[in-house]
Amino acid sequence: MTRGCFITLEGTEGAGKTTALAHIVAWLEYRNIPYVLTREPGGTPIAEEIRQLVLSPRDEQVVPLSELLLVFAARAQHIEKLIKPTLNLGTWVVCDRFTDSTYAYQGGGRQLPFEPIVQLENLVQAGFQPDLTLLLDVTPEVGMRRASRRSAADRIEQEAMSFFQRAKQAFLARAESAPERFRVINADQNLESVKDQITQALSGWSELHRG
Amino acid sequence: MTRGCFITLEGTEGAGKTTALAHIVAWLEYRNIPYVLTREPGGTPIAEEIRQLVLSPRDEQVVPLSELLLVFAARAQHIEKLIKPTLNLGTWVVCDRFTDSTYAYQGGGRQLPFEPIVQLENLVQAGFQPDLTLLLDVTPEVGMRRASRRSAADRIEQEAMSFFQRAKQAFLARAESAPERFRVINADQNLESVKDQITQALSGWSELHRG
Repeated sequence: MTRGCFITLEGTEGAGKTTALAHIVAWLEYRNIPYVLTREPGGTPIAEEIRQLVLSPRDEQVVPLSELLLVFAARAQHIEKLIKPTLNLGTWVVCDRFTDSTYAYQGGGRQLPFEPIVQLENLVQAGFQPDLTLLLDVTPEVGMRRASRRSAADRIEQEAMSFFQRAKQAFLARAESAPERFRVINADQNLESVKDQITQALSGWSELHRG
Repeated sequence: MTRGCFITLEGTEGAGKTTALAHIVAWLEYRNIPYVLTREPGGTPIAEEIRQLVLSPRDEQVVPLSELLLVFAARAQHIEKLIKPTLNLGTWVVCDRFTDSTYAYQGGGRQLPFEPIVQLENLVQAGFQPDLTLLLDVTPEVGMRRASRRSAADRIEQEAMSFFQRAKQAFLARAESAPERFRVINADQNLESVKDQITQALSGWSELHRG
């Protein structure tokens, strides 16, 4: 049995991840490919509890290093209990955010040094990486305009525009460092164009790797 | 103002930590030394939430690496938000368990490789260590006989005797590697003898370092 593919979706606020996820799912269903849709931080009951710790606003500030360790604790749980067992069954895994978001948000956005992220990535993933990462690249102003239409705003969404500018740059640096894994989608464009780009990325990648 | 001292108390189940803590507190109060009593994992509201994640029995097993990351996430929070600020005020901190317990339980007991623990200790503590560590060294059979009188048994206490034998050995190896920081208390002996040993350890250490 062929191992399933591990696809991650990345992008800053308002990049259109929800729409993109629905489009990826439609692409998989059209091809009768079995898949599991998951997200980070989270993806298992324990990892979701950790997510609550990271994302819920509270009186006590979560110190940046603690936040980073929590994110990787959730990730270790997610990889071991959901992602790897699912891929081993031949089922594809589509994950809303993964380690590239840690580089973009904690490293780029919060300006935590990148070195601990590299260390923890090596410790937790030991070379394990997504097969394909779709990066929805959006101009922060465009993204924030879209995101502000939504009512809920968690702690991270309350951060300033410069935060998203740094996150965007960190995402693009990740994409440049692993061009075989990444496909960068121009998410400033309208919905139909974004969907077309995703279809092309998925189909092109699939032909290349799955024949 | 003189920085407060950071004292940790270590030992396997049934070593008599509760009694020892009360005795340390009595020693500090007799000398009018201001102190804060805390514990690990835990010590701040967020760190206590992480403690619940680590210690509560649940359907989904916490994978060992995730547990290790959670313990150090709680520790990063505890050091930054409670321990260091308290010491900087000149107040002493007495902590029920610290990093030596991670070596003993995750490394010795659960037999997780020691290397990730060393990496995370360096990442989170960057050389920060207790000034004095009292290790209550108890024979596992003696400790288990004492602990079994108590009603509550958390997940870690349900582990087997060999677990505690390995934890005891890991504690002793830590004590040997840092003799200036550690005082090993023979906790197989009766209550009065243990109290006497603690008094001697505290007073001897205090004369040596505080004049």
